[in-house]
Amino acid sequence: MHAVGVITEYNPLHNGHLYHLQQAKQQTGADCTVVVMSGNWLQRGEPAILDKWTRAQLALQAGADLVIELPVFFATQPAHLFARGGVELLTALGCESLVFGAEHPELDFGQLMAAFPNGREAFKQYNATYATLFNAALKTATGQALTKSNDMLGYCYYVANQHLGGHLKLVSIQRQVADHNDAAIHMSQFASGTAIRQAALTGNWSAVAKVVPATTLAQLQQQPLVSWADFWPYLHYQLMSTTVERSGQFDQMAEGLEYRLREMAQSATSFDDFLTRVKSKRYTYTRLQRVATATLLQLTATEVQAAQMQNYLRVLGFSPVGQAYLHQVKKELTLPLYTKMSKDLRLHELALDYRAGRVYELINHQTQDLYRRPLMIENAPK
Amino acid sequence: MHAVGVITEYNPLHNGHLYHLQQAKQQTGADCTVVVMSGNWLQRGEPAILDKWTRAQLALQAGADLVIELPVFFATQPAHLFARGGVELLTALGCESLVFGAEHPELDFGQLMAAFPNGREAFKQYNATYATLFNAALKTATGQALTKSNDMLGYCYYVANQHLGGHLKLVSIQRQVADHNDAAIHMSQFASGTAIRQAALTGNWSAVAKVVPATTLAQLQQQPLVSWADFWPYLHYQLMSTTVERSGQFDQMAEGLEYRLREMAQSATSFDDFLTRVKSKRYTYTRLQRVATATLLQLTATEVQAAQMQNYLRVLGFSPVGQAYLHQVKKELTLPLYTKMSKDLRLHELALDYRAGRVYELINHQTQDLYRRPLMIENAPK
Repeated sequence: MHAVGVITEYNPLHNGHLYHLQQAKQQTGADCTVVVMSGNWLQRGEPAILDKWTRAQLALQAGADLVIELPVFFATQPAHLFARGGVELLTALGCESLVFGAEHPELDFGQLMAAFPNGREAFKQYNATYATLFNAALKTATGQALTKSNDMLGYCYYVANQHLGGHLKLVSIQRQVADHNDAAIHMSQFASGTAIRQAALTGNWSAVAKVVPATTLAQLQQQPLVSWADFWPYLHYQLMSTTVERSGQFDQMAEGLEYRLREMAQSATSFDDFLTRVKSKRYTYTRLQRVATATLLQLTATEVQAAQMQNYLRVLGFSPVGQAYLHQVKKELTLPLYTKMSKDLRLHELALDYRAGRVYELINHQTQDLYRRPLMIENAPK
Repeated sequence: MHAVGVITEYNPLHNGHLYHLQQAKQQTGADCTVVVMSGNWLQRGEPAILDKWTRAQLALQAGADLVIELPVFFATQPAHLFARGGVELLTALGCESLVFGAEHPELDFGQLMAAFPNGREAFKQYNATYATLFNAALKTATGQALTKSNDMLGYCYYVANQHLGGHLKLVSIQRQVADHNDAAIHMSQFASGTAIRQAALTGNWSAVAKVVPATTLAQLQQQPLVSWADFWPYLHYQLMSTTVERSGQFDQMAEGLEYRLREMAQSATSFDDFLTRVKSKRYTYTRLQRVATATLLQLTATEVQAAQMQNYLRVLGFSPVGQAYLHQVKKELTLPLYTKMSKDLRLHELALDYRAGRVYELINHQTQDLYRRPLMIENAPK
């Protein structure tokens, strides 16, 4: 069997994702589609609107054969680390290709990487705060810039794959949404995740129904919808009770930012109000949200970096094809495979994901790890 | 001018406290009554029902001339440390005597201390968990036991005063409430704080009115009433997001208790439910509540112990007599005197009290330290 991989967040799974999944199979002719998906905390530093089990089920219903959780210590990171985590998992599973959507699929990432001055070194230092610097350097060297988020992710996949031995064939396809940040749902079967979440949180179901599969619509209507607003009281409390010495150790905290966060939190009235108060030219909203996530989850830079050295394959669900594929590659996996949260794993290897799940449960009220087994879907729909 | 001191919590100030204040003046003939009072977090490991400013005002209205805050790192401690913090403050202020209520004022604490085997050493190791052991040893040596909480506190005042040079004359008076833990309000002008808080929280104002001054009744009816139930979501979140390595460092945590707290918190539905689940023969409720307070405030044993070495006089309020007394002793104070929370003090000397106040503000919604100045009362009532 041959497998194709995709790296996703599915927040929530919409028609654009469905198209992406279908293209992945069609363009590669693979027998098995592997989906690496963020858990309950996402790359832009926010909680997922639906929990990881619901989103894994939607992925299986949409045609995925195997859903693997991207651990929180990669899922809540800047693009290059998010990409590294995902590429590592697909490589460990023996996938042959990685299909991703880009705003400009015609970009030649190899050329960009080769042309970029001190490519590898600059990339290693890359940090979301310096996206502008990074692009300025790229533009000087190549005349091109990666201003679109999925172009940038594509580049990061390319670089990560090169660093990890180049086992994956990278296939870029045209994204079906003009702009990831486009907030409105237009007269189309495609809309951005942002627009869909906003419509769902305000109960605008007719708008949502146009742009997501029926399965997603049903889950959005049945499940608790989670957003940063729900966690604001906890973040507020955390910033009021922690020392700046400790919050300075949280992941992705910039020097001095811990003082600003605490000061602004004291009088903020909501998460949005807090973000607006903290925002300055120096930090993007995404960066601030990621720091807020690390603060909420009390993730220190030290523990995140240590965990990133020990990636693993956590199975959230599979179809019969995915099960057969897992059986086929089981003996050649280059990372440990976990299908349940044992007591030992909770305390050690899976501790950060377990913690991330416990905090999510405070709002979601559904067990995220304890007693959960991978979802099994009998027959994937056509 | 001569000053008498009392060490209090006033949670809330009731007729028993009023009697105590009057007796303190009468029995010593002092010109000035100094009240050392816990801030927003108390010795039994719980938030005060009314904030420290409201309680300080009630104390001034009840005849106190000077109200000094007992810092959180002494206020939330076992009896011997609570006593040490309070005695240290009264001594630093040059008070001549300390008047306290006891269930058995006839006890000869000097005799007890002298008879207790390895008195000082055993006392230093004293810990609420070992109250039973302590009393067993005392009973063997002296035939007496300190089973009542105010007798025990009295003994702790005695020992602390001896350790600090014996500057205070200790005067014990008969407590007017049979049992501090007595939950019901009987046909009397006196009731326990526990009974009064319970009546206030359930709106039983006719019962409250019988046993507190009119000023206290009015404040209880006007101010937000705070209890552990309000902080449960934050404690729950803290226990879900912290590592056991970190929670193991919180003040008064017993070895292994951090695991039990986290496990029990996961499925607990309220603070009371949580305490019931955690309770075992090994820990008293009071001990568990103090550990919960340290966890909520993220107070580590290291920072508490360091702070205890640097006690200070934080003025919450005074009458004209108190102001004159402060002026009289100002140059001979043996501890620093603070009347406002400057930026430097917030970050250093007063950091723990500031943090304790910020967390209390999450529920109370009234600034506890920033921009607050000592209360001044013009003329104390007769």
